[in-house]
Amino acid sequence: MDLAVDLDARGDRVGAIYRALLEAIRAGRLEVGDRLPPSRVLARDLGVARNTVATAYERLVAEGFLDSRVGDGTYVAELAAPVPAPRRAGALHPRTGWTFRALPVSGEQPAPPHDFRVGIPDAGLFPFDSWRRLVAAELRVGAHSPGTYAHPAGLPALRTAIVRSLALSRGVAAEPDDVIVTHGTQQALDLVARVLVEPGDVVAVEDPGYPFARELFASYGARVVPVRVDTEGLVVDEVPEGARLVFTTPSHQFPLGPPLSMRRRTALLELANRQRIAIVEDDYDSEFRFTERPLETLHAMDRHGRVVYVGTFSKSLVPALRSGYLVAPASLREALLGARQLADGYGAPAEQAALAHFVADGMLARHLRRARSTYAERRGLVIDGLQRLLGHRLELVPSAAGLHVTATFRDQTADDQAVVAAAAEAGVAVEALSAYAHGPGVPAGLVLGYGAAVTSSITPGLERLARLL
Amino acid sequence: MDLAVDLDARGDRVGAIYRALLEAIRAGRLEVGDRLPPSRVLARDLGVARNTVATAYERLVAEGFLDSRVGDGTYVAELAAPVPAPRRAGALHPRTGWTFRALPVSGEQPAPPHDFRVGIPDAGLFPFDSWRRLVAAELRVGAHSPGTYAHPAGLPALRTAIVRSLALSRGVAAEPDDVIVTHGTQQALDLVARVLVEPGDVVAVEDPGYPFARELFASYGARVVPVRVDTEGLVVDEVPEGARLVFTTPSHQFPLGPPLSMRRRTALLELANRQRIAIVEDDYDSEFRFTERPLETLHAMDRHGRVVYVGTFSKSLVPALRSGYLVAPASLREALLGARQLADGYGAPAEQAALAHFVADGMLARHLRRARSTYAERRGLVIDGLQRLLGHRLELVPSAAGLHVTATFRDQTADDQAVVAAAAEAGVAVEALSAYAHGPGVPAGLVLGYGAAVTSSITPGLERLARLL
Repeated sequence: MDLAVDLDARGDRVGAIYRALLEAIRAGRLEVGDRLPPSRVLARDLGVARNTVATAYERLVAEGFLDSRVGDGTYVAELAAPVPAPRRAGALHPRTGWTFRALPVSGEQPAPPHDFRVGIPDAGLFPFDSWRRLVAAELRVGAHSPGTYAHPAGLPALRTAIVRSLALSRGVAAEPDDVIVTHGTQQALDLVARVLVEPGDVVAVEDPGYPFARELFASYGARVVPVRVDTEGLVVDEVPEGARLVFTTPSHQFPLGPPLSMRRRTALLELANRQRIAIVEDDYDSEFRFTERPLETLHAMDRHGRVVYVGTFSKSLVPALRSGYLVAPASLREALLGARQLADGYGAPAEQAALAHFVADGMLARHLRRARSTYAERRGLVIDGLQRLLGHRLELVPSAAGLHVTATFRDQTADDQAVVAAAAEAGVAVEALSAYAHGPGVPAGLVLGYGAAVTSSITPGLERLARLL
Repeated sequence: MDLAVDLDARGDRVGAIYRALLEAIRAGRLEVGDRLPPSRVLARDLGVARNTVATAYERLVAEGFLDSRVGDGTYVAELAAPVPAPRRAGALHPRTGWTFRALPVSGEQPAPPHDFRVGIPDAGLFPFDSWRRLVAAELRVGAHSPGTYAHPAGLPALRTAIVRSLALSRGVAAEPDDVIVTHGTQQALDLVARVLVEPGDVVAVEDPGYPFARELFASYGARVVPVRVDTEGLVVDEVPEGARLVFTTPSHQFPLGPPLSMRRRTALLELANRQRIAIVEDDYDSEFRFTERPLETLHAMDRHGRVVYVGTFSKSLVPALRSGYLVAPASLREALLGARQLADGYGAPAEQAALAHFVADGMLARHLRRARSTYAERRGLVIDGLQRLLGHRLELVPSAAGLHVTATFRDQTADDQAVVAAAAEAGVAVEALSAYAHGPGVPAGLVLGYGAAVTSSITPGLERLARLL
């Protein structure tokens, strides 16, 4: 028998022979029913004691890989048949209620020459050198990785830093215990959906709106109802009766752009209180404010604890940090912590410690100041170009913050998705407003991000777009 | 009026006055109905042009914070009333179906002198210096953070490295596209539960078993049915009719310890195929094998694609890496990728790239070799102590792998949780087998981890335990 046994590998010769035989069986070199050489023969071939081979055989018999027939010999047992070629498709299928399939992500495509993609910050502005030093300093033995499992809310130092920063910049009054650090906005929404949404519950979302929020609520069995958006943001009067939860982006309606007006804010909070609705406030890119408008948060105006505030570092820093947070009323805290444990346990402590330093030591504020001025310049170029070059076709939607602007077609018979496809051909990446629609009634328009756009490419890109229109 | 305006902060004096007034209103220093000084008076006080103050007033009027009464003056508007003291409890409560509250985590307690806690690897064995260098090398601008959003399956290099490593060590035949890198085992289970478990579905779990798996399936509305475990592992014959999913730990039943016997493995796969059941195989600590038993994976034996294999780096490296993976049949791939996008988007790319190097460059194998020999020594001491010092009271459950052993009381009237409490008082942290029970019939016993135990503290700890019993 041609059996390759690596007898030098370890002192354990029985184990080496055992493994070699098992490997031969698995690979099909020894087939079901094959008779093995007598132990003394194999022992002689291998230059080991007979008992060594006999012991290896005995183990394989005990495991059921070999059959020993008294007075006859030792055979490869039926049980040991090797697995055939790997299965191709598999026999498991999603549950009937599961309808969502992954959407394309921005990292999959190469950056186009004129990059107006939405929701992408400029990673070139992020101070990677400082960040690397902070992370490296936390990756020490024992520092944050004593082998144990950490708290689902996240590192206290980071929660404290977030609370201080939010109080200053967003008027959010909260305690560190109200905060759960999450793996980005999406996980914050997921935790909230887990603990609040019962199958069949009505969840109201803005239309146009953020597809991953809509799909998330639907995946929990919610009846997702799109609510119209106008230049004052969510049309609060149209929130359906009996809604359990309203998902809204009051600082910079995603993707249309306007802030939720003060009167709508008041109306929404009153409605929520009257009808016992939970409000989820997604404040995804309000760090970049370009006017003196207050953009007060709903959380700061909420007197009854009906608002869950969700923030992210994906826009203010970079998405690759995978870091966001939620601020929730105390009445939800235990449930949300449980949800986090069931979802994925807790977040990476060294990276959280690094981020705590970054926020508490003023590096976030410094970065935001720099980034804001870069983005303000790009925003100015985009708005100027839209009005000057494309004003006859497009009408800018007023906005006050964020990393994108939206413009609707003056002629609403325009096919915005066709325009986007044509622009892509010409090296100009813009997005169609209608691509964010859930129900009917969303206007045709273009959404233009300026986070990723190279400043000097903006005006030429809009000129190209103007030639296409 | 005592208005602190930081006029040097930026060139924008209107903005500075606007912000200062708003801040005064919010802080309650200016109350609803208060009359503001005429613009020329405030302008003189601040040493600015009257028009500058007038413009700031106008903005605040436009926003609704001030009322301008013709021929009278400017007043703080009703809308501007500051938010009262922060809400205490909040008015939001979990949905009726949500029952789980966070469980205590190991990182919350200080390490006891004799530390036999379960599921904690020795972080002192992890090569933090190498890891820090790998991570730092990947945290470069543009390397993995171009501002865009990455693929939900994880970095291809890491998926390739995982597939190669699994093929060698676990006989798992898979393609990189079959792998989704997750935020630990728990997220892998969560993704599977999302796409497979419809409310009302029967999910069979091992009893005793892993509480976070049980609670996870229940949180999706599953009817979770505990199935007995004996010294051959899961009692496959008792898997309930109509089960949609079976969750099992075949290499090292958690927490009882035995591997699932070969005949049970075959029976389980046959049952799954006959009744169209999904098998979730959690191979959480099989990297640490201490016998020549094969511990073949169900995934390697599965001919029909009914097994989702779940692995983790939490035990083989450290939990703080928050890194695990699943290997799923192609028929589930799109749904699982969608689930990952809805759950939290994707994983941190720089850390994934570092881990890819760690696995592909042989550092994982080297670490495992070293760790295995340390753990083998500790395991030997625990088993020896249990038999020598406690053998009259406890019977060791045979196992072949992992970071803990279990022993059941010979006298089953023993109260294992009382023993654990008494041991804790004496500085000996062990766990009660019955604490992992879901239904009745789980024996009284002790679970002793040796991942975290200081080698020299093991025998003295068991001596203390013996004196208590």
